[in-house]
This record gives sequence, structure tokens and C-alpha cells, in this order.
Amino acid sequence: MQNEIKVMAFDVFGTVVDWRTSIAREVAAFSDQHGLDLDAESFADAWRGQYGPAMARVRSGELLFTKLDALHRMNLDHVLGELGVSDIDEAALTDLNNAWRRLDPWPEVVEGLTRLRTKYALATLSNANVSLMVAMAKYGDLPFDVILGAEIAGHYKPDPETYLSVPRIMDCEPENVLMVATHIADLQAAIACGLKGAYVFRNRELGEREKPQPDASHGFDYIAADFVDLADQLGC
Amino acid sequence: MQNEIKVMAFDVFGTVVDWRTSIAREVAAFSDQHGLDLDAESFADAWRGQYGPAMARVRSGELLFTKLDALHRMNLDHVLGELGVSDIDEAALTDLNNAWRRLDPWPEVVEGLTRLRTKYALATLSNANVSLMVAMAKYGDLPFDVILGAEIAGHYKPDPETYLSVPRIMDCEPENVLMVATHIADLQAAIACGLKGAYVFRNRELGEREKPQPDASHGFDYIAADFVDLADQLGC
Repeated sequence: MQNEIKVMAFDVFGTVVDWRTSIAREVAAFSDQHGLDLDAESFADAWRGQYGPAMARVRSGELLFTKLDALHRMNLDHVLGELGVSDIDEAALTDLNNAWRRLDPWPEVVEGLTRLRTKYALATLSNANVSLMVAMAKYGDLPFDVILGAEIAGHYKPDPETYLSVPRIMDCEPENVLMVATHIADLQAAIACGLKGAYVFRNRELGEREKPQPDASHGFDYIAADFVDLADQLGC
Repeated sequence: MQNEIKVMAFDVFGTVVDWRTSIAREVAAFSDQHGLDLDAESFADAWRGQYGPAMARVRSGELLFTKLDALHRMNLDHVLGELGVSDIDEAALTDLNNAWRRLDPWPEVVEGLTRLRTKYALATLSNANVSLMVAMAKYGDLPFDVILGAEIAGHYKPDPETYLSVPRIMDCEPENVLMVATHIADLQAAIACGLKGAYVFRNRELGEREKPQPDASHGFDYIAADFVDLADQLGC
């Protein structure tokens, strides 16, 4: 069929992995190790809070394309600076920055991806750089078929070039790609490029903070409780 | 260690998969189906024989970067034309061209890669385009961590840009990458870029035709009977 799904393209932070719990765990260990008194969850939120603004500097052209690992490190230095933390050795900072490579998948992710993979090619479509994604996939046993995303496209989401790199590289039409994400704006940008969209609920992504909820007005092709539910809906 | 291997980068045609036997099998079926009398192995050799010259046209700048799928198709049309075969419908030609996505791995490949993967990130470093490689990896259950190579680099081997794209994307030094191939010239080009090299014997790659054999003068870091032997040598 002209209109069939051939490739599934996954947002990763929040959608595949529980970044907040994982980062908070690593921040707590770092805090103990260095005799600091950091609030681990607030620190995780503050660090992640610098993510959008840092990418916006690349998207606007203020910064040349910079890998997410390097943006994470700039953001880490910023957050530590705001908290007045200094005199941490370089190896410890590098290790903490690499916490983004050690993010736990949500509990049903491996089962869901394993089922979906029998029918579709599974691609990452993340703002993470390739080496970060490869390390994370190895850490979490995530069975992706191909690592795509911002570094391969040379553009950060939600730039259209990022979404359109998937059908271009996978030799199909945009409508043959189903983007999967737990973020409404990400899916809307994908759909604006002609991709299909599947929303997956990850209501604990931000801890107690509420997330915007999807409704019929968003025009998503699928709305799923999790990856296993999505596999059920797709007949995998 | 500064000098340690972190990433293994694999040539694919000949090194991972037995392209000649697989292509000949598909050509034989195509020949029967269309009432032709093709010599399947000679056809496979002739088709593959156009591979280097087609890429040379891209490398010289005569052609803009063109995916290998498209070069394979130009080469197929050329070989069929030389044999005076015409009037084959487009769907059958597309299917035959996609034979390059259905190449059998050498018998010990999956076991070897599975062992190597426990210790290293495994990348493809092939002239195949990404969608071709993804399809082949799914067909053969090849557990690569990341699909790299000519399309990602925008250059065909043996251009240095192709080899150097692996450490650039994987965030390591060239010396942290071990290139694995059954072709001496491919490894020599990788080593000239600072990568390490492992030669793997695939003495039946060309059927009865002999291949050049490696010797100490080539300076390869490893010479292995097959991927399982290489895993043994690397302590995986």
C-alpha cells in the first residue's frame, strides 16, 4: 500500500527512557560523593530545563551544529555555576555528563520494541547525538535497527530537516513513517512534514508536574498507553 | 587506555555476507521466471564488476553522491543490456535489484558479532546505503549497533572521509576504531587514516577465483580465520 507504515521513528528522552528518575539517581550519587547537598530531582529538572534553550541557539544559527553531549556539558556547567558548585574534577564532570547515556527505559519498552521490530524498521529520531544513542541503546538493550536523528540530519527538532531525514535515508515517503513521541509539539511538527504520529502516555515523565494531554484536535494517528499497547494496535 | 579499541567497523559485502552465492541464487530464480538462460554466477560477477567503476564516477565528481541502490540498478541495466535482455517489467527489475538486501551472512557471523558486541560498539562501514544495510541486517539478524558508512559520510570508500566518519561520529580517536574487512586495499586505506585493521579470510568470496592473501608487510593488527576466531583473539 502507498500509505502503509514501513518505518517507526522514536523520540527517545521521555518517550523511550525515564530521563528524570535516571538523572536524579546519578545526581544524588554525585552529590554524596562530593559532599554536596543537591536536590537531585530539582537538579535534573534544571539541567533538562537548559535543553531547549541550548538547541535554540543552534537552530537560530548563533551556534554551529553542536552535538547534544557538548550542549549537555555546557548546561551542566551552567547549572552547577548557578548553585555555586565549583572545584569538581574534570573526570567526575565527564562521568556525570555521561549519565545521559545511562537512562533506564520505561518498563515495557524492550518488549514493545521487540514486537514492533518484527514488522517495521525501528529508527531513533532524537536530538541525541549518535554516540550517546548507541551507548544508551547498549545500556538499555534497546533493539533499534538504525540510529538517526539530529546529528545525522545536521538539524535539531523541530526543524523540518530532522523529520524529513528519516524518509530520505530510509527511501520511503513521509507518510510511510510513524513518529512515536510523548510530546505533542514534536508529533505536530512531524505531522506537518507529512509523517504519521503516535502519542504515547508517559504521565510520570516530569514527576508530579502535569503534562499537556492529547485530544482529537491534534489529529494523531494513534494514541497508546505504552509501547505494548501500540504493538497491539498495530497488530504486532 | 588511549590506544584501546572502542568501536569495530565492518566492511559488509564479502566480509559479513556471501554476496556472490546469494546474488547468483536470485539471478537463477529470475532467469527461470523470465525464461532466460543466464549463467547465474557469471551474471553475479559481471554485476559486481560494475561496482567499483560506478563508485569511481561518484568519487571523481562525475556523478553527485548517488546511493548504492541506484548504482546497483544502473549496473543491472547495463549488464542486462550487454546480454541483450529487455522487456522485463519494472517490478521484477526492482525486486532483482533488491537481492542486495537479501544476502546470506557467512555461517559464523551472527555468533561472532554477538560475542564481539558484548565488548565493543559494532558499526557497519560499507558502501551500502543505509536503507539497504538496515534491510540486510534485518534479513540476516545481524546485531549491529549503528549503521554508518558511505551515505552517512557522503563519500565512498576508499575516500578518507568515509573511514574518518566513524571516529568523528562515535566520538573517539581513529586508533580506537578497528576496521574489519576481507579486502586488503580497504584495510590499507583505513590504516592510512589511523584506524586499526583486522583481516578476515573469506577465500570463497569469489568462488574458484583466488584472492590476494595478506602478509606481514601489510601491518594488519589482527588476521583471523573468521569472526569467531576474531572474537577469541579479542577476548570476547
